[in-house]
Amino acid sequence: MATQRTVGILIFPDVEVLDFCGPFEVFASAKVEDDRLFKVSVVGETTDIISCRGGLLVKPHVAFADSPKFDLIVVPGGSGTRTEMHNPALIGWIQSQNESSEITTSVCTGALLLARAGLLVNMPATTHWAHFDELVGHFPELQLDNTRRVIDNGHIVTSAGVSAGIDMALAVVERLYGRHIAENTARDMEYDLS
Amino acid sequence: MATQRTVGILIFPDVEVLDFCGPFEVFASAKVEDDRLFKVSVVGETTDIISCRGGLLVKPHVAFADSPKFDLIVVPGGSGTRTEMHNPALIGWIQSQNESSEITTSVCTGALLLARAGLLVNMPATTHWAHFDELVGHFPELQLDNTRRVIDNGHIVTSAGVSAGIDMALAVVERLYGRHIAENTARDMEYDLS
Repeated sequence: MATQRTVGILIFPDVEVLDFCGPFEVFASAKVEDDRLFKVSVVGETTDIISCRGGLLVKPHVAFADSPKFDLIVVPGGSGTRTEMHNPALIGWIQSQNESSEITTSVCTGALLLARAGLLVNMPATTHWAHFDELVGHFPELQLDNTRRVIDNGHIVTSAGVSAGIDMALAVVERLYGRHIAENTARDMEYDLS
Repeated sequence: MATQRTVGILIFPDVEVLDFCGPFEVFASAKVEDDRLFKVSVVGETTDIISCRGGLLVKPHVAFADSPKFDLIVVPGGSGTRTEMHNPALIGWIQSQNESSEITTSVCTGALLLARAGLLVNMPATTHWAHFDELVGHFPELQLDNTRRVIDNGHIVTSAGVSAGIDMALAVVERLYGRHIAENTARDMEYDLS
């Protein structure tokens, strides 16, 4: 039986819905026969219900204070990142998880939070096309690359805006479990694997 | 200013996450300048938190009993549809909404629920590729068409599996507000408009 990995998906007020629901769908769907390859948890500062961008109401499974160490973490974007980049509890959670994570990922302006956590030093990275200037404004040392939808540096994987989180998650599935599993996952979602 | 429409997105236990989060993202994002074109609500049998497929916890904004009449409804799929097709409260909500809706839509095996509500008579329809036989088994009179990702009959619009809900919602945006608005919405999501 293939190794099951744990995934912690971060959410916060005004997180962009598809940024985290796309990867959630991929990781919660990937399987070998009937064995699920990932155990997915949604993590918030507390377990109080969070209002996402557009008003979707989602309750985290686990709070920062009770958070186990996850094999993979997903840091999504959204308008709320501009507040959260100044939230030491959230940035601290990312840093702490990253110390032991196998893979740390971002979607869209989640890259702003990884940059703030000091995790995008000396490597190419990407974000939503409309926010390149904003990221470089905050972090002039960033090496942003707008030619790729997913940029895989091994430990750190960043992706472009919103729906690109689906491609990122499928790319991670492919790296960890092989092309065939990624193809099956994409087919179950009727999504074109890139 | 363009007319704002209301959208009611149905959820139920073991609803497939991307089936409803894809359309949520599209309808919550579509705008003209800064004016949002849709007001999106999530509707459940009650407003108790619902566990989606894979365990995502979502709280509906409104219960069937308090539900206004929506301009558009979205009926997603997922493993929970096999239970919900026998739930008279849920099927009754779909039928009641459909009497006054401008557009009634389904994603994936949400078509099973529309069929059960008697709404797919004498028209082509689609569902998730893996569930064509199951649908025809329940409803032999259905005219399923596996050649199109979105089938728009005017009042009733059905779509293929999971990620096809994004295409369905973008197609509805295009019909109601024009190609330019649909293109902008897709670009904001970094999604390829078909």
